[in-house]
Amino acid sequence: MTTNSRGKDLQSVIWAADHLQLLDQRLLPEEVLYLELRTSEDVWEAIRHLKVRGAPAIGISAAYGLVLGSSEAAGSSPDAWLAAVGKHAEYLATSRPTAVNLFWALDRMKRRAAELADGSRTAEQCQEGLLSEAIAIQSEDEETCRLIGEHALELFKDGMGVLTHCNAGGLATARYGTALAPFYLAQENGINLKIYADETRPVLQGARLTAFELQQAGIDVTLICDNMAGMVMSKGWVDAVIVGTDRVAANGDVANKIGTYSVAVLAKAHGIPFYVACPMSTIDLETPTGTEIPIEERAAEEITEGFGKRTAPEGVKVFNPAFDITPHSYVDAIITEKGIIRPPFDVNLKKLFDSIPTA
Amino acid sequence: MTTNSRGKDLQSVIWAADHLQLLDQRLLPEEVLYLELRTSEDVWEAIRHLKVRGAPAIGISAAYGLVLGSSEAAGSSPDAWLAAVGKHAEYLATSRPTAVNLFWALDRMKRRAAELADGSRTAEQCQEGLLSEAIAIQSEDEETCRLIGEHALELFKDGMGVLTHCNAGGLATARYGTALAPFYLAQENGINLKIYADETRPVLQGARLTAFELQQAGIDVTLICDNMAGMVMSKGWVDAVIVGTDRVAANGDVANKIGTYSVAVLAKAHGIPFYVACPMSTIDLETPTGTEIPIEERAAEEITEGFGKRTAPEGVKVFNPAFDITPHSYVDAIITEKGIIRPPFDVNLKKLFDSIPTA
Repeated sequence: MTTNSRGKDLQSVIWAADHLQLLDQRLLPEEVLYLELRTSEDVWEAIRHLKVRGAPAIGISAAYGLVLGSSEAAGSSPDAWLAAVGKHAEYLATSRPTAVNLFWALDRMKRRAAELADGSRTAEQCQEGLLSEAIAIQSEDEETCRLIGEHALELFKDGMGVLTHCNAGGLATARYGTALAPFYLAQENGINLKIYADETRPVLQGARLTAFELQQAGIDVTLICDNMAGMVMSKGWVDAVIVGTDRVAANGDVANKIGTYSVAVLAKAHGIPFYVACPMSTIDLETPTGTEIPIEERAAEEITEGFGKRTAPEGVKVFNPAFDITPHSYVDAIITEKGIIRPPFDVNLKKLFDSIPTA
Repeated sequence: MTTNSRGKDLQSVIWAADHLQLLDQRLLPEEVLYLELRTSEDVWEAIRHLKVRGAPAIGISAAYGLVLGSSEAAGSSPDAWLAAVGKHAEYLATSRPTAVNLFWALDRMKRRAAELADGSRTAEQCQEGLLSEAIAIQSEDEETCRLIGEHALELFKDGMGVLTHCNAGGLATARYGTALAPFYLAQENGINLKIYADETRPVLQGARLTAFELQQAGIDVTLICDNMAGMVMSKGWVDAVIVGTDRVAANGDVANKIGTYSVAVLAKAHGIPFYVACPMSTIDLETPTGTEIPIEERAAEEITEGFGKRTAPEGVKVFNPAFDITPHSYVDAIITEKGIIRPPFDVNLKKLFDSIPTA
């Protein structure tokens, strides 16, 4: 069920001929462990227990989970196979009921399965076609991330210092990540950047994941506490900030991991450009402004006893928002797979979507 | 040697007729444990191993430690007693060689001992006089802190939200603290404040100490992560920021716990006044600006494994400055026991010192 794989390419989701290899992100950075998943139940359990995180990575894992599930019916009739696909898709969708990418990926896989089972193929051929679709979902995500990184390259010059917050990295996606994609592309192009990674309390994604994946890739990364960002900026060490996002509103307001707003304010005060990297799918023109984005509050224990040790008094009041909203006035550019978008975002985001032919 | 004392008045240093009771701050917030110290060796050990922290509290502890040490000679001649005082003072000074308040308190106690042993008193009377001097040091510190709190009251109105960083509280001083004194004085005067305590990574003094002592005092305190300060300010919940300081330069630049500068920049961006509370002894007119204040860098492990568990990859580069400098342009007022000082600080700090008769 498990295999230790230090030093291998750090993709979080790997299809390995007949099973899925999934990097157990809960164990990072102390342990690099790839789980071997061979059934849809294995994948359901991995998603449910947060062994895989990051919206794209969850969607990709679910797609492969469906392939694993339907393989049991590859020897039966196409109709029985299609029924198996439906059954496993329904099951996998219950693994994390709030993950939009999970449903998106499963819906796409079901649609493809229906096309395949049109009577012109055996169940085995259908099964092969469904695997191709999962691989396509993964490749497209990798391509999207790679394009984000390529577009961002014009913003970064050799020797620049760049600060990032949380983890919008390769571990959360097929490869490259969103906010971290420019760093990987810069490395591929021989451009040296000096990265500052905020540790990102309370869950420490910056310390546990960003510092880890950049270090593994041989990129120059320095870990700091969140409250050191201002000092590091005042020293002139930061030439740009780049972060990911969970949702961009139509006016360019950005929801992202708690602390992003503080970083944006500090960047503006120091005259440092603040960039947001995301796929087009994260931009939601149906949400007019950041005010309409609900902010989840999480358990106090994340702050008071997050790492196996109580660090605050019993019963103390805690405010623990998971996200914050950075108003568009703090955002210098949004970097997508279709290019770099500048203010005014309300006009330019709409223009970008209007220019894309609908599927 | 030890006694459990939940719920008693949370002074960190208590003289108890013939011994010293010292709150072991290393165990907070999980355990409230008062150590019973009966020898100068006990006190040396407590200072060395950081059971007591905060410059004033260390000085007060050392003064009582000297009383405990010289008590062995209270039955001998005044000359022998004075020799014992000198011996124990020299010894106690080695407990923490960089603590300025430690030397200051021991020097003052030695001077007083020499005055007492002028031949007009028995050694026992000298010993009584020396205890009075230690009590005076403690009372004066309490009075200084109380005056800081009283002066600050004009800045705070009922219902205001106030954010603080790190712990400049009663635990670090005889009582009341510096930055926290206004909160205790407000409470004594029936003024309700809503306090936000930054947890203050990496050592978490805000979570472990500030949240703890305010909670024990029944003051409304909410713990947040450092990176939430911006969001809390943007919600309009913070009407003022108040912090302590390790040193104020002649131009009003302020050295304080890492993260203070970020808070100051965020406060300015939100139009929130930023106050610094400190005794006059912290203002150093010999230091022209903050640039001349050296910033200690501390061990990476405070960040990478501060929670009892490794939270960052092995060998990752870390930047861990203990302090930062907040330029005077971010400081709206400095609150001392002599009153509130406003900009221009270079002029007004000098004026304040010139107005005080030299001892």
